[in-house]
Amino acid sequence: MTFDLPAYLIARRALVERHLFACLPAEDTRPALLSQAMRHAVRSGGKRLRPILCLASAEAVGGTAEAALSPACAVELLHTYTLVHDDLPCMDNDLVRRGLPTVHARYGEALGVLAGDALQTLAFETLARTPESRPGTLARLVAEFACAAGAAGVIGGQVEDIRFAGAPTREIVEYVFRHKTADLFRAACRLGGIAAAAPEHDLERLSAYADGLGFAFQITDDLLDADEAKSDDRPELSCLDLMSEAEARGWAVQHTRQAVAALAGLPGDTAPLAALAEDLLTRLA
Amino acid sequence: MTFDLPAYLIARRALVERHLFACLPAEDTRPALLSQAMRHAVRSGGKRLRPILCLASAEAVGGTAEAALSPACAVELLHTYTLVHDDLPCMDNDLVRRGLPTVHARYGEALGVLAGDALQTLAFETLARTPESRPGTLARLVAEFACAAGAAGVIGGQVEDIRFAGAPTREIVEYVFRHKTADLFRAACRLGGIAAAAPEHDLERLSAYADGLGFAFQITDDLLDADEAKSDDRPELSCLDLMSEAEARGWAVQHTRQAVAALAGLPGDTAPLAALAEDLLTRLA
Repeated sequence: MTFDLPAYLIARRALVERHLFACLPAEDTRPALLSQAMRHAVRSGGKRLRPILCLASAEAVGGTAEAALSPACAVELLHTYTLVHDDLPCMDNDLVRRGLPTVHARYGEALGVLAGDALQTLAFETLARTPESRPGTLARLVAEFACAAGAAGVIGGQVEDIRFAGAPTREIVEYVFRHKTADLFRAACRLGGIAAAAPEHDLERLSAYADGLGFAFQITDDLLDADEAKSDDRPELSCLDLMSEAEARGWAVQHTRQAVAALAGLPGDTAPLAALAEDLLTRLA
Repeated sequence: MTFDLPAYLIARRALVERHLFACLPAEDTRPALLSQAMRHAVRSGGKRLRPILCLASAEAVGGTAEAALSPACAVELLHTYTLVHDDLPCMDNDLVRRGLPTVHARYGEALGVLAGDALQTLAFETLARTPESRPGTLARLVAEFACAAGAAGVIGGQVEDIRFAGAPTREIVEYVFRHKTADLFRAACRLGGIAAAAPEHDLERLSAYADGLGFAFQITDDLLDADEAKSDDRPELSCLDLMSEAEARGWAVQHTRQAVAALAGLPGDTAPLAALAEDLLTRLA
C-alpha cells in the first residue's frame, strides 16, 4: 500500500489551522484592527508545510502529532511574521500575497510592522505552551527556536538576501538558502522531535533531513520563479545566477536523496516525511 | 542611614550593561551590519530603569539580583526593539534618539525593521536562559513576558496610541498608559519575583507597585514633554489633554504613594524600589 500524501496533507492542514486560529486573538479583541491584521496575515498562508513537518517529525521519532501541535503553530506564526515584514515597502514592497492584499497594503504600513511584531511574540507564547516531555525541554525548545529565527538564522539570511547586488557567489547563495529557508525547516523538524522526547541521534537525523529538504525546496522555488514574470522592485537572489537549469535540477535531486536517506533508522512512521520530500521534485516535472 | 539611590543606580546599570552586551552578537558576527545595528540600538539606551526594576524586585522578595539577570536583560532587549520600531518613518519618524542617530536613520529602513525583529527574538532567547527556580518557572516567565509584550500588552498600547486623533478620552489615555508603559514595568517586576521563586501574594504586591510606578512614570513624562518643543510628525497622546498640570501632578503623586504602599509586607530589601518611585516625583520638582 502506498502512502496517500494528498489525503494526509488535507487532514494535517485542517488540524494545524484549527489550532492556529485558536491561538490568535478574536476579530473583535481590542485593538480590533491589530487582531484583524494578525488574522488576515495568517489567513493568507499556504500549504502549512512547516507545521506539518513539525507534526510528521514527532511521529517519525515514535511520538504523537498532538505532542507537537504547539511548536508546529509557533513555527507557522513565526514564518507568517517574516512574510508580513518581508512584504513591507522598505523590503520587497509586495501588495498581494496568494491573491489577498498584504497586511500593509490593507491596514497601512504601521500596522504591517506591528502585526508582524505581535505574530513573533505570539509564536514564543504559543511555543511556551508545549507540554514538557522531560525537565529542561522548554528551555531547549525556546533556545533552538530563537536561534533559528534570530540574527544567526532567518533574520541573518534575510539581511544578506536584501543586501546582495549583482551576481551572487555560491557562498552567498548557500548562506541565504541555509539561513533564510533551511534554518526554519530544521527548527520545525527538531522542535517536533524534542516535543516527542526524541534522543539526540534521532534529532540529528531530523536535522539532516530538514537541511536537505530546505535546500531542495529553495532550489525548486528558484526554478519555478524563473518561469514567472516577476514584478518585484528588487531582483531576487537565485541559484540560477550560478548554474544552468539542468544543474539546479540535479542539485535539488541530490538534496532530496540526502533528505530521504537521513530518515533511515528513525523509530516511528517516516512515510509522511519521505513522501513530502519526494513530492517536492514532482513540482519540477 | 538613608538609601543612596544614585550609587545604587550606577552599580546596577553597570551590571545590567555588562550582561546586556554579552547577550548581543559581536560587531563582526555575520551579518556584520545587523550585529552593528542591534548593538547601536542597545547603546542608545537610557537609565536601564526596567532591568533595574527587575533586579530590585528579585531582592525585594528576598532573592538575589543575579537570579534575575536574564529576565532583566530580556526586558531591556524587548524595550529596545519597541523603540527601534516606534522610530520608523511609518510611525514616529524620529531620526535622533538620545543624541545618536536612530537605527533606521543610520542603517536604513529595512535594517531598522530587521534589527528590531532580531532584538525581540534575542529577548526571548535571553529569557530562556533563566535558571529554573522550580519546575514550570520558565513556562510561566515566557507566558507572562509574551502577554505583556504582545497584542494584549505593549503592541496593543502602541496601536491605540498611533490611531488616536484629536482629543483622547480618559479611557483611551488609561488604556495606552497601562499597555504601552505599565505592562512592561509590571513584567519587569514580576519576572524578577518569579526568577527569585516568590510566592503568589508577593507577586501581587510587585504588580501593584509596578502599576503605580508605570502610571506615575508616564504622567511625569507627559508633564516634562509639555515643557519641550516637540518635532514629531504626530501629536502625542498626553494626559494633559484631559486635565490641568496641577491635576496631573496630583495624579502622579497618588500613583507613587500607591506604589510605595504596595511594598509593605515584602520579605526582602524594598529600599531600592521605594527610592526609585520617590525619585520619579523629584523629576517634577
